[in-house]
Amino acid sequence: MVDLDRLFNPLSVAVVGASNDVRKTGHRYITNLAKGSYSGELYPVNPGESEILGLTSYQRVTDIPGDVDLAIVTVPARIVPKVISDCSRKGVRFAVVHTAGFAELGVEGAGLQEQMIEQAQSGGTRIIGPNCMGIYSTQAGINTVAPVPATQEDAGTVAFVGQSGWATENVLGIGYERGLRFGKVVSIGNQSDLTVEDLLEYFGNDDNTSVIGIYIEGMKRGREFLRIAREVSRKKAVVVWKAGRSEYGVRAAMSHTGSIAGDSIAADAALMQSGVVLARDLEHLIDLMVGFTSPVLPAGNRLGLLVEAGGGSVAGSDSAAALGFDLCTLSTETQQELIGILSGVIPPFAPPRNPVDIVWGPSVNRSSFFLRCSRVIVKEVDALLVVNYREYDDEFAVGLAKLRDEVNKTILIVPGHSFENRKGMELMTRHGVPSFTIPERALGTLQSMLRLSRYRSDY
Amino acid sequence: MVDLDRLFNPLSVAVVGASNDVRKTGHRYITNLAKGSYSGELYPVNPGESEILGLTSYQRVTDIPGDVDLAIVTVPARIVPKVISDCSRKGVRFAVVHTAGFAELGVEGAGLQEQMIEQAQSGGTRIIGPNCMGIYSTQAGINTVAPVPATQEDAGTVAFVGQSGWATENVLGIGYERGLRFGKVVSIGNQSDLTVEDLLEYFGNDDNTSVIGIYIEGMKRGREFLRIAREVSRKKAVVVWKAGRSEYGVRAAMSHTGSIAGDSIAADAALMQSGVVLARDLEHLIDLMVGFTSPVLPAGNRLGLLVEAGGGSVAGSDSAAALGFDLCTLSTETQQELIGILSGVIPPFAPPRNPVDIVWGPSVNRSSFFLRCSRVIVKEVDALLVVNYREYDDEFAVGLAKLRDEVNKTILIVPGHSFENRKGMELMTRHGVPSFTIPERALGTLQSMLRLSRYRSDY
Repeated sequence: MVDLDRLFNPLSVAVVGASNDVRKTGHRYITNLAKGSYSGELYPVNPGESEILGLTSYQRVTDIPGDVDLAIVTVPARIVPKVISDCSRKGVRFAVVHTAGFAELGVEGAGLQEQMIEQAQSGGTRIIGPNCMGIYSTQAGINTVAPVPATQEDAGTVAFVGQSGWATENVLGIGYERGLRFGKVVSIGNQSDLTVEDLLEYFGNDDNTSVIGIYIEGMKRGREFLRIAREVSRKKAVVVWKAGRSEYGVRAAMSHTGSIAGDSIAADAALMQSGVVLARDLEHLIDLMVGFTSPVLPAGNRLGLLVEAGGGSVAGSDSAAALGFDLCTLSTETQQELIGILSGVIPPFAPPRNPVDIVWGPSVNRSSFFLRCSRVIVKEVDALLVVNYREYDDEFAVGLAKLRDEVNKTILIVPGHSFENRKGMELMTRHGVPSFTIPERALGTLQSMLRLSRYRSDY
Repeated sequence: MVDLDRLFNPLSVAVVGASNDVRKTGHRYITNLAKGSYSGELYPVNPGESEILGLTSYQRVTDIPGDVDLAIVTVPARIVPKVISDCSRKGVRFAVVHTAGFAELGVEGAGLQEQMIEQAQSGGTRIIGPNCMGIYSTQAGINTVAPVPATQEDAGTVAFVGQSGWATENVLGIGYERGLRFGKVVSIGNQSDLTVEDLLEYFGNDDNTSVIGIYIEGMKRGREFLRIAREVSRKKAVVVWKAGRSEYGVRAAMSHTGSIAGDSIAADAALMQSGVVLARDLEHLIDLMVGFTSPVLPAGNRLGLLVEAGGGSVAGSDSAAALGFDLCTLSTETQQELIGILSGVIPPFAPPRNPVDIVWGPSVNRSSFFLRCSRVIVKEVDALLVVNYREYDDEFAVGLAKLRDEVNKTILIVPGHSFENRKGMELMTRHGVPSFTIPERALGTLQSMLRLSRYRSDY
């Protein structure tokens, strides 16, 4: 296993291509590090500048006085091999090469990429990229990927590897809004040296990682990926969106990250047999990562549905049927218990067989009302989906999380109006009560959670 | 055809069950009307109050001095037949019965619903509901459905009928945020009198309606629906989400709106043969309505893909392949033309065969750059999907809309980051350049647009 500790927590960082010119990406990277949460040593490198943001600018990496754990490289492609040669000579542990214009551009670029790798190997510098957006680490306060905070307060246990800057920045941005809190994120680009397999293995062994998301166009070491995934899936969810599936997609992937994609149907089967959870698209990928932040996976397919929205009840029921959930009729005792809680509090409603559609909740003490109903229903099912209005507040989130821990069953939640409730959805997910925009997305995710749960028991 | 003009544009409205008690829905309805955009006559009816919001409160509907076009009824279920009897005697044209507790509660409730209908028929009052959220009309400034403006300035040509308050308020709320602008929306509940067929026929003949969305659990007159849909689909898109599809869903629909659902597979086939566009869920329904606000449908399956996000290029290509689009290789002349625009402006990029992945657009004059590229690509395709970053501003929206009208081809757009670009997405859609969160949702919608286009040419 490649030890990546210093990649995610470097004591010293050199920005090669740092600049005083605000139009250059090298300006953005050095500014983010100098003015952000990163507190280690910081060295700008640019032969044309003597000082950048008050820091001495070095001509070359080899001129830097102290050790360098990580070099962030953003210089023209043709200069990259020389910079990496310097990194090797200097003993730099990791270089993140943002620059594009390598294998993704065809034969000539591939040659340049080869040259760069030769230089890296000469001194043992390990490469992320080229043609990538870099890394995000809350531990180190480093973020070259997306407009999302990367401080200790925002730290979480979700990790992500994306072979696309677009996918990576969207997973970070949309995911953060949805309540995902990341620890370590990498945009790996062309995978010229370190590959998704290295990252998966490292995250699999990282105590601060609980959920691993992956966007990949082409695997360099497919068999190894499956071997690692098989082990990691036993304790952590590995969610994979494999793109470049079609003839068109393969063509696009080739010019994007120089990836060669294989047979998708065979790959899907092999991935699923290794416990990997498959995503169809960006939003599905994020839904799945949200779902797996739940500390509990369902043990079976009995589903309880507590709704305050008739249409949501029908949609949830249709979806439950389509996905093979058992919307089991609650026992007479449980129905009576629910009627006891509900009668006098809300207008007349249909028998609470399951789904339990309470039509319209009471106007006071709503959180405790829904918690009481949830507590009764959850006894007889493996997982509970709640679709209700408003009050996605601390009381409700903490209450549902406590109930989940007491009964050790999965609880998911969908607000009546997602467009009014983004903050509340985020809050719920952060408490391990994964929240979704519509019942279908919640139950599709629950189905994947059940599959992983079964993979683990069958193992 | 039932003339519903006065339902959507009533000169006088009575709120039966209006109240000074802020906890009652009757308070909310009268307040919205009295303090909102509605400018016709307004009559509160409540035997326990003499004045509400400065308006004289009447004991009964029959006590109101002037004519009443529309009665909004929110009183306990057992009193509803009596209120409707009064409406009939008074000659009220339409009554929207919000109250729940009718056919959806079983035999007893069904009896009460029957009584209500008998009373309505005695005097010719037509009923929307019961068990519904009512109506939204920008023409009249009436909105009992969702927290979305209902003024003339917010008027649009999208109509919606939902047999669920949840679906209706979400379509209005999410749809409004996505750029849909509605004219007439109805939550129809139990369909005791006026049904989805009546609404479809009316909207089909309404000059101010261009797109019709429908959420339905059970159809009362299925054959008639198909007959009407067949005609309407020739000029307007009819988008239908039919819920209550499964055994579970049927059970839920029965207790939600007392609907009896039929064979879904046969129904889907019949609907599609009638030109109806089928939606799978709430978000798909909204995506489709967004798509059909485009003034142009694609004439064929040749697709152009202009992207500034490699991952988006791969995702769009995979999706194009899966959905049967022809991501046709652009001619040598067109490729040369693109290279002419791009070289010197952006870093080296792969040949612009299609998809055209420009990797990273220039930092200045971005809108005109993307417009120039779009103009070149769109010549050789039936529809164009653009996936790019920022600048979802008036210049870009107007420019794309103008290009669309010049070439008479569909243009769709996906922002690089949907989480940062909600306002921009709304703007694009309002200009008839439908905007989506991910390429897959854009192309799934485009596929339905192509189907409708073919239905019309085959007709």
